[in-house]
Amino acid sequence: MHAGNDLILRAARGEDTPRTPVWLMRQAGRILREYRDVRARAGSFINLVKNPELVTEVTLQPVDLLGVDAAIIFSDILVVPEAMGFPYDMQESRGPVFNNTFRRREDLSRILSVEPERDLHYVLQSIRMVKRELQGRVPLIGFAGAPWTIFCYLTEGKGSKEFSVARRMAREDPELAHQLLSAISEATLRYLKAQIEAGADMVQIFDSWAGVLGPEEYRLFSLPYLEKICQGLQDSGVPVTLFAKGAHYAVGDLAALPARTIGLDWTMSIEEARGRAGTKSLQGNMDPACLYSEENAIIEETHKMLRRFGPRRYIANLGHGVYPDTDPGKVRLFVETVKGYVHETV
Amino acid sequence: MHAGNDLILRAARGEDTPRTPVWLMRQAGRILREYRDVRARAGSFINLVKNPELVTEVTLQPVDLLGVDAAIIFSDILVVPEAMGFPYDMQESRGPVFNNTFRRREDLSRILSVEPERDLHYVLQSIRMVKRELQGRVPLIGFAGAPWTIFCYLTEGKGSKEFSVARRMAREDPELAHQLLSAISEATLRYLKAQIEAGADMVQIFDSWAGVLGPEEYRLFSLPYLEKICQGLQDSGVPVTLFAKGAHYAVGDLAALPARTIGLDWTMSIEEARGRAGTKSLQGNMDPACLYSEENAIIEETHKMLRRFGPRRYIANLGHGVYPDTDPGKVRLFVETVKGYVHETV
Repeated sequence: MHAGNDLILRAARGEDTPRTPVWLMRQAGRILREYRDVRARAGSFINLVKNPELVTEVTLQPVDLLGVDAAIIFSDILVVPEAMGFPYDMQESRGPVFNNTFRRREDLSRILSVEPERDLHYVLQSIRMVKRELQGRVPLIGFAGAPWTIFCYLTEGKGSKEFSVARRMAREDPELAHQLLSAISEATLRYLKAQIEAGADMVQIFDSWAGVLGPEEYRLFSLPYLEKICQGLQDSGVPVTLFAKGAHYAVGDLAALPARTIGLDWTMSIEEARGRAGTKSLQGNMDPACLYSEENAIIEETHKMLRRFGPRRYIANLGHGVYPDTDPGKVRLFVETVKGYVHETV
Repeated sequence: MHAGNDLILRAARGEDTPRTPVWLMRQAGRILREYRDVRARAGSFINLVKNPELVTEVTLQPVDLLGVDAAIIFSDILVVPEAMGFPYDMQESRGPVFNNTFRRREDLSRILSVEPERDLHYVLQSIRMVKRELQGRVPLIGFAGAPWTIFCYLTEGKGSKEFSVARRMAREDPELAHQLLSAISEATLRYLKAQIEAGADMVQIFDSWAGVLGPEEYRLFSLPYLEKICQGLQDSGVPVTLFAKGAHYAVGDLAALPARTIGLDWTMSIEEARGRAGTKSLQGNMDPACLYSEENAIIEETHKMLRRFGPRRYIANLGHGVYPDTDPGKVRLFVETVKGYVHETV
């Protein structure tokens, strides 16, 4: 399948690799002038996401311009709630906004069953086009939001520091919360299966708002749904990455699920995570703000990270999406530093 | 000094107490109708903060209405940057906004030296009035923001999820960042000393944005300044509490400073914190969203927390400020549950 570079898949599976593979969360996006040009042509973020030709163009840009070891399909985690009947608007200054949020039991009847080939055809079409264009140069990563994170947006209706509306519903009416989480999980599993059928070589689940839950609520409201999705994807043989930002307490729990790779944010200890993740692979976790530093500091911090993770079961990345105002030259420096690093043999 | 209830001071000092003391972060505030009435009379948040009579009224409300074991002076962490020459505006929907942020080396010359009795007289006056009114019923807590957190607001100019402007400055020009952090620390130390002279029985330092830093950056940009402040307060004999929200990796580092109590947020493990904090006292850490639950669940979760922290070296609190839309009846239930709890003797 990949006559080309399949380092990231081998690292995810725990196989030895001649060097550490590297990509960046949000690599296709505002850091690149070339992306901003396409985005301007599209007119709006949502127009861009729904246009397979343009999605293909921006998905491939970082492969060509940054030299990363994987492409990730350009899309948004909120296409799933949209397909479920809850459309959103992406406002440049405020981020996503839902006009009709999920607030009460009656809203269950508004949930539509998601048929990915019908309702999310534009993403699957984009995946097929990207795969054709890539010609196996690097693997393509598909993705979705974790049910808890989608629940946060659906109930809160917008980004938030604390998502207290979402957490209020989980506390006031846990049964309703679980019904909504189940519906999201079912749609997400179908969607990820369809992405894999369309050609995704690897999938990542983003639990961006994991960190607003304490450890026990995480075990109640997020982990069981991640587990269901991971189990549903097992037959595909495609490696799954779980990235639960802020859930420093959950690395061991996540590693116990049938996923191959656990993503770490930059506050998490590499050594502790290695201890808790057993034979699972890790991904991350340089502070995205490190790419604001001068070049020597970036090289030094990248080397330090590579030493601490070690040569095996590791995919280099930042601990969160690259910040939009990052100099692409510094992103390239990060990528090249990882690709050029040789582990000392003991 | 306290013929009345000094449980919180004794718990902070590590002395045995007949029961666990309890208060809530943001207890004086929007949860209480009585507060909202005073706030409406004041016209604006900043008018309220600067009016010692009204501050006294809202500071005492939770002592009378909720039965907490401490009062905390009603104020804002941003009064320090304001006194340093960087005024802010509090917008109901957006939170604090600075019109003139700190962005470059030349801004150092705009920093004013802070003389608390001159520049923050209204806070000190409020403390004196509250102390008179309290007549020793419960101790009064003073507070300030941690230098790193104030640095975040001063550079970013407003609240943010990631504070990438602040972290960019710390990475691009660490020397400038340290100069600004030193200036903030000096002002903060003077301010806390003045609060203690005015009558504060205990002080808490809020590092609300600790969590945007990784462990190594926290050691560079926050801990040294907290240390300087704690050292400067040692002679006062007044116990200091450090609350670094999100800095799950720093509990041990914070406990090594000359402070008496370490506050935990609701994502942090009580058992791990006990292991790392040695003989220091702990404060926290119930999920503020738990107060949205039905009564039995609140009682159960409060009991569980009390059991896990144990009877000694402990001040019960939430893991962050109480959410404004919390039912005050449930806050009272939390307070009463703590006050009525009897530890099983083994």
